[in-house]
Amino acid sequence: MVQELLIDIDKAKNIPLNRQIYERIRKAILTGTLHTGDLIPPSRQLAGQLEISRSVVIQAYEQLQAEGYLIMKKGSGTFVADNAVLHLSQSKNELNRMKIDSNLNLIDCSSHETAKKDQFSVKYDFKHGVPAWDVVPMDQWQKSLVRTCRQATPDLLGYGPVEGSYALRKEIARLLRSSRSIPVEPEQIVITTGATQALDILARLFIKPGDQVIAEDPAHSFLHDIFHLSGAKVVPVPVDQQGLRVDQIDKLVMPQEQGTGPAKLAYVTPSHQFPTGVTLSLERRLELLDWAEREGAYIIEDDYDSEYRYVGKKVSALAGLDVSGRIVYVGSFSKILFPALRIGYAVLPHALVQPFLSIKQITDRMTPSVEQEALADFIRNGQYAKHVNQMGKLYAAKRSALVLALEREFGKRIRYYGDQAGLHLLIEINSNVCEEAVAARALHYGVRVYPAGCYFTGFKPDNPTFVLGYSNLCEEQIDVGIRRFAQAEIDCTSREVITA
Amino acid sequence: MVQELLIDIDKAKNIPLNRQIYERIRKAILTGTLHTGDLIPPSRQLAGQLEISRSVVIQAYEQLQAEGYLIMKKGSGTFVADNAVLHLSQSKNELNRMKIDSNLNLIDCSSHETAKKDQFSVKYDFKHGVPAWDVVPMDQWQKSLVRTCRQATPDLLGYGPVEGSYALRKEIARLLRSSRSIPVEPEQIVITTGATQALDILARLFIKPGDQVIAEDPAHSFLHDIFHLSGAKVVPVPVDQQGLRVDQIDKLVMPQEQGTGPAKLAYVTPSHQFPTGVTLSLERRLELLDWAEREGAYIIEDDYDSEYRYVGKKVSALAGLDVSGRIVYVGSFSKILFPALRIGYAVLPHALVQPFLSIKQITDRMTPSVEQEALADFIRNGQYAKHVNQMGKLYAAKRSALVLALEREFGKRIRYYGDQAGLHLLIEINSNVCEEAVAARALHYGVRVYPAGCYFTGFKPDNPTFVLGYSNLCEEQIDVGIRRFAQAEIDCTSREVITA
Repeated sequence: MVQELLIDIDKAKNIPLNRQIYERIRKAILTGTLHTGDLIPPSRQLAGQLEISRSVVIQAYEQLQAEGYLIMKKGSGTFVADNAVLHLSQSKNELNRMKIDSNLNLIDCSSHETAKKDQFSVKYDFKHGVPAWDVVPMDQWQKSLVRTCRQATPDLLGYGPVEGSYALRKEIARLLRSSRSIPVEPEQIVITTGATQALDILARLFIKPGDQVIAEDPAHSFLHDIFHLSGAKVVPVPVDQQGLRVDQIDKLVMPQEQGTGPAKLAYVTPSHQFPTGVTLSLERRLELLDWAEREGAYIIEDDYDSEYRYVGKKVSALAGLDVSGRIVYVGSFSKILFPALRIGYAVLPHALVQPFLSIKQITDRMTPSVEQEALADFIRNGQYAKHVNQMGKLYAAKRSALVLALEREFGKRIRYYGDQAGLHLLIEINSNVCEEAVAARALHYGVRVYPAGCYFTGFKPDNPTFVLGYSNLCEEQIDVGIRRFAQAEIDCTSREVITA
Repeated sequence: MVQELLIDIDKAKNIPLNRQIYERIRKAILTGTLHTGDLIPPSRQLAGQLEISRSVVIQAYEQLQAEGYLIMKKGSGTFVADNAVLHLSQSKNELNRMKIDSNLNLIDCSSHETAKKDQFSVKYDFKHGVPAWDVVPMDQWQKSLVRTCRQATPDLLGYGPVEGSYALRKEIARLLRSSRSIPVEPEQIVITTGATQALDILARLFIKPGDQVIAEDPAHSFLHDIFHLSGAKVVPVPVDQQGLRVDQIDKLVMPQEQGTGPAKLAYVTPSHQFPTGVTLSLERRLELLDWAEREGAYIIEDDYDSEYRYVGKKVSALAGLDVSGRIVYVGSFSKILFPALRIGYAVLPHALVQPFLSIKQITDRMTPSVEQEALADFIRNGQYAKHVNQMGKLYAAKRSALVLALEREFGKRIRYYGDQAGLHLLIEINSNVCEEAVAARALHYGVRVYPAGCYFTGFKPDNPTFVLGYSNLCEEQIDVGIRRFAQAEIDCTSREVITA
């Protein structure tokens, strides 16, 4: 169909009109307002509509054609080209194409997020992995920032220490000693640009191409990307109610043949496994440490949301058991303050500090330092503790509301995991509906839920599973959202809707 | 000798006394207050001095022994151990030791900066690569930060786009189009955590182990580190008054034998070569582009201090000549605002944007975003242009003072390069003194100068050369500093002082 193009150009503006038209159409394509195959109005029509010269419109169309956004079919008109939005929405294809073209070092980055425009208005988003936006303490954070800016010295503004602010490392050491039982010195801590950077640096430090990395199954696919980029083969090891099946590692590791290296690294989330939420039992912890010592391997402990625990005693960190320098502990402030802060850290055995720093220096020289000092100030002034405490209560209430609603709607048809801690739980519904279909149907009710099947590599669950985050919904929204989610599941069960 | 240990412990504090003693001694060793071989007071003596139980002191000493900081020699006493400060001051040795230990992926990171304590008080520091600290517009920057914090939305605080803030990319595109003549769209720009990260990502994208990378000789050794980490062999190509000797590339590239890959990448600093300061001539630019097209190679243009030019017309960026998508332009705000900001960017040919983003996402997901928005605000409000303009005048005056002082003190014995732009110049003294000896002697006069011999790989200059930065000295300091520097050179020439 002929797309009606609502283009607003500004004749008073300093930008040439053909440029303005070019920009508007290009943006419309890239944001998904115009789709592949859409017919663009004839130049004459658009010129009339905008009351400008036709040649101006033709110039813009020609530029868009030259860049591959539009295609002219003789006798039919001008259309949005087939691959016009390739580089926004189909990164995988783009990557494959590039691989052929120029032999770059590309990875098939499965989790690369692309901008998706919703066709539904989502009022109940059970997104996980983010803090509650409405209570981010921006006022206090801003005060810490301003205080730091006011006291800024050349030392702070210049190329500072690669390992990061000593003040912040001291505060983190204090927090980890008291709340995670890790006997840590500030000298063992390196500040990184988010926990992600710590993981990437560790991959670059430990992995040689072909080496095997033990990962939990299920796990976030992003992790696989990180290890793949350094050339590792990821060995997914199943997780049960006690956490990683350490006894399975030896069976699953591939024999070292040509091109396959040893398993030198294991990545675990012991306090609240992602996405199942289970806690690694003490027995398994000791088994895992034994394995590492026996194999001369290292363990990465990602403690991504250890701050919030609602039931039972807080579990100590695995790193607290480390006596032989085999564990690197990784944390961040993304779930407590906000992800865009990008302040994470690695706690390293003394012998690994300098090797880690050598790579950290090359990756970005250092993490921005004004924010590091501001964070040290924020912790020192007690704002951090106050905030964590408030959040703990808030999230506990939300969690209860979620569990209550789930039990009411699904009764015995549901099992949930990981409700004792963190900011999400994993549910498994005793049903044979397709989880993607339920999620798609739920969107019709303004509810977004997250199928968890994609996190499993080798051991797909029989039943549909979902990760439900609850940090950003109030109790009432949780209640309504789950009711609608249950309705979506019923819709799919009764086969009225197979795909949305 | 028996070190007199001034340890202040706080008995009222919540920290066990043995821990306090342990901490104090450890710190004294790490900061250099205690040196290898220093005798530690007997436990009985320290216990008496501190009026505490001797067993407490013994506990602390035992812990320090266990960790290798102290060593007990029967009959002689307790000493600071031989390798106690290894991991602070001798990172190279540490690295080598680690290499043997555990087969990690280590690089011999030649530029890893270690904390050095000066024995001289330096009043005249000709440090290069940093902006003038006294005029960093912190008040205005702080206002932009606060404005951004006040308007912060969940979109800003969460995991935002990997490529960075659109507002900032738009401002950068505008700046590059107007001041660097690069026809760039915001969509081609990716914000990175400093220019360093852009270079590392490009190395990871382009280089396979064994590939060759063309680098300027001289160059900063840090660059070699970046390329080495990705497995490249760096091919240093000499620089003359016209910049990189492009005609030498084919002669210097190694034939592709086992393990040696092709030269697929060249790194250049065309507008103000580091450290010589020369500008790549138009002829050479075209030759270099020809080379890249012929070889299917890519060029990284690092425009690290293009903002300041004092003589002649501003030189356009090499990227402005690129018609075949072979140039990646890299810039940062380190020299204009301050290095600790860690905001840099890469300008990529369209086809490379997605591949670059896939790696950027893995390295740190995204660069901190509050600061990106604040920087967009700072540019949009005209503060950036105002600041660059003011700095231009300030640095021009400093540069004149430096050239004047050099001509007065050294007359025709000196040649200088790169005085038309940037924040430093390179000087060559017609003399046979050792540049390290002159630098060491200058310290006696409170002057720090930077020998440049270390930047040359294969083509060492015959004469002593120095990089002199002038951004952080006032005109009077420059004048006095150069007079004293000249005196140091005379001291060394007259052989009164060979080594300081």
